[in-house]
Amino acid sequence: MPVNLTPPSADALLPVKGIKLGAAEAHVRKPNRKDVLVMQLAPGSKVAGVFTTNRFCAAPVTVCQEHLARGEAIRALVVNTGNANAGTGKSGLQHARETCDALAGLMVCSPHQILPFSTGVIMEPLPVDRIISGLPHCIRDLQEDHWLRAAETIMTTDIVSKGTSRRIALNGHDITITGIAKGSGMIHPNMATMLAYVATDANITQTALDQMVRHAVNRSFNCITVDGDTSTNDAFMLIATGQSDLPPVGVDSPEYLALQSAVTEVAIELAQAIVRDGEGATKFMTVQVEGGKDEIECRKVAYAIAHSPLIKTAFFASDPNLGRILAAIGYAGITDLDVNALQLYLGDVLVAEHGGRAASYLEEQGSAIMQASDITVRVVLHRGEAAVTIWTCDFSYDYVKINADYRS
Amino acid sequence: MPVNLTPPSADALLPVKGIKLGAAEAHVRKPNRKDVLVMQLAPGSKVAGVFTTNRFCAAPVTVCQEHLARGEAIRALVVNTGNANAGTGKSGLQHARETCDALAGLMVCSPHQILPFSTGVIMEPLPVDRIISGLPHCIRDLQEDHWLRAAETIMTTDIVSKGTSRRIALNGHDITITGIAKGSGMIHPNMATMLAYVATDANITQTALDQMVRHAVNRSFNCITVDGDTSTNDAFMLIATGQSDLPPVGVDSPEYLALQSAVTEVAIELAQAIVRDGEGATKFMTVQVEGGKDEIECRKVAYAIAHSPLIKTAFFASDPNLGRILAAIGYAGITDLDVNALQLYLGDVLVAEHGGRAASYLEEQGSAIMQASDITVRVVLHRGEAAVTIWTCDFSYDYVKINADYRS
Repeated sequence: MPVNLTPPSADALLPVKGIKLGAAEAHVRKPNRKDVLVMQLAPGSKVAGVFTTNRFCAAPVTVCQEHLARGEAIRALVVNTGNANAGTGKSGLQHARETCDALAGLMVCSPHQILPFSTGVIMEPLPVDRIISGLPHCIRDLQEDHWLRAAETIMTTDIVSKGTSRRIALNGHDITITGIAKGSGMIHPNMATMLAYVATDANITQTALDQMVRHAVNRSFNCITVDGDTSTNDAFMLIATGQSDLPPVGVDSPEYLALQSAVTEVAIELAQAIVRDGEGATKFMTVQVEGGKDEIECRKVAYAIAHSPLIKTAFFASDPNLGRILAAIGYAGITDLDVNALQLYLGDVLVAEHGGRAASYLEEQGSAIMQASDITVRVVLHRGEAAVTIWTCDFSYDYVKINADYRS
Repeated sequence: MPVNLTPPSADALLPVKGIKLGAAEAHVRKPNRKDVLVMQLAPGSKVAGVFTTNRFCAAPVTVCQEHLARGEAIRALVVNTGNANAGTGKSGLQHARETCDALAGLMVCSPHQILPFSTGVIMEPLPVDRIISGLPHCIRDLQEDHWLRAAETIMTTDIVSKGTSRRIALNGHDITITGIAKGSGMIHPNMATMLAYVATDANITQTALDQMVRHAVNRSFNCITVDGDTSTNDAFMLIATGQSDLPPVGVDSPEYLALQSAVTEVAIELAQAIVRDGEGATKFMTVQVEGGKDEIECRKVAYAIAHSPLIKTAFFASDPNLGRILAAIGYAGITDLDVNALQLYLGDVLVAEHGGRAASYLEEQGSAIMQASDITVRVVLHRGEAAVTIWTCDFSYDYVKINADYRS
């Protein structure tokens, strides 16, 4: 079950002026569930995105990047679940383009103004005809207040739909930011089989939007891991409709930092929601590594801890088997690490120092902290000033069950 | 259950002249099981070893390296299970030294002629007094034909004891090689919570022995992975007693390559046995990556496949969910990989090419192969001549169960 995470209420997801959302049951893989989503953007909207670095990136990722590179105004995003259209070669690309063509026909715009997204099983042909048949239903369903419906439509193995909103006042103007995301397995830095869409009614220059999307993703979706697998389809899209009457925001505008901060907050909340709903998760783990020489070595240590199946199963068992954390720190790849100089904390409790168990540490303290569902592991390296925080979850029977059964 | 692996019979493990083995029940962690082993080496024996690269290496690993560096003739190895004596700081080092002191007193030699090894739980104080009390029992138990007993004594979460022998004729002399190993979790390249001891009665120069141990480990224990965790205690020791009447073998001797090849064969069989008995394993997977520019990129691809929990759970489910393998190849870190040029085989069946499913591939073929317990995944990159083979196992409910319950 998701760790301290409930689905958003329909009211909690605030409409963003200039965006309408519509869904359909297209029977992509399973009957009786909404599995195709169209997000329609008002003219004048700007879009920036970050995509998977996987060399086997999915066909829709390639098409998205092509369309964004052309620079024509994006008018709609179309998302299907049930099939990732990845590992599908030339026909996969053709299917992604046919989907754009069909939606462009319905919306009377160019296919290059459409961005396609897919998530689901890899290496199976996309049932493009069924998706195209669903598009008119999506169009008829378009509403500004359909964000929760959209969040539900894009779910795959997610148990809980994910979305959040912020309303901030900038220079006397109310600005709304709403985001939705999906994903619970194949979750890794550089993203995963996750899709996230954050939209605001602020007017933001393209340069500022491009900078903001990188800032937000590096502090959110690039700081989470469930199983270390980086998927073929990941995408994080930031949309600015410009429908608010706040004047355009550039990178040097006084409002830029406040807006970037709010967008990043939304992205972090969505990223953490993905971990809280991690496949089979029973614990939410925050891994903080401090006192590194640089961020790179902090990340090495944090991910060695966050990826270790031995540590993740110990957390599942609520067992303070903390030696496994020391072992992970030791193999993280810092070749000149002095293990006698570092400190390991579980929550606020000093667990290890001087190369071994801290003299003050009592097993009961560790056991008590391990009972919680939100747990922080903190490593202080005493080598420098750099620090990194990442989020992950434990590894349970249900992770195996979900992934052994996913296709059946 | 172990995958196509049964314990060796007592007869199958051939005595090696110059080596006696004795075990005791010292109640290191649990009662009623042998948990301390002494291997006594005849004078004139030579020893070479390879140890973990983990910065949190265990105290006995540090002491072994110190003692080997002194160059005094090694006279005994002492191994305990139940406690790894790792993450134990200064007192851990003292405990490892006290163990050597005690055994040296019983054997009337210098403590520097003893090599200590530990395996088991990390970051708990070694019950050194109980281990020392067990040593006299080990000494009384010393026998040339106690190899199976030794293999059983060093087990931790292993289900099956591991050992094998070879007898080869070199220049008219019979040479015996016998090896034992333990390990089933925390298994990774650069070794893991595994211990392996291979002994031969051949007379081998120290230089040749040092070269042979690296050759063997790079083709065996450095080619296996169960869960990607590299432990604090790994050690692979090669012992040459020189009791055979074959003249000394150096790196330029005509017998060198045949001997190295037989030692490597023993090491590979032991390494594969560790994977076959991998925690919770139900499938044994051979991952072959061919046609790489160099071994480094072949290893990246092979380990991306072998470490992916998504792939390992799909194998557990006997589900030919092969898209997950494409995804792993894609994120393995070859930045200029042309995914349209590579081919993926499951067993002998071509599964994917031209960036997607092979036209000839039928799901039934994949399903049929996945029913087997020994399965080969082959990737042909078409970039060069390099190739790598590694071995791993699947990821099951029982992996989680074993590691969630290990301390309880």
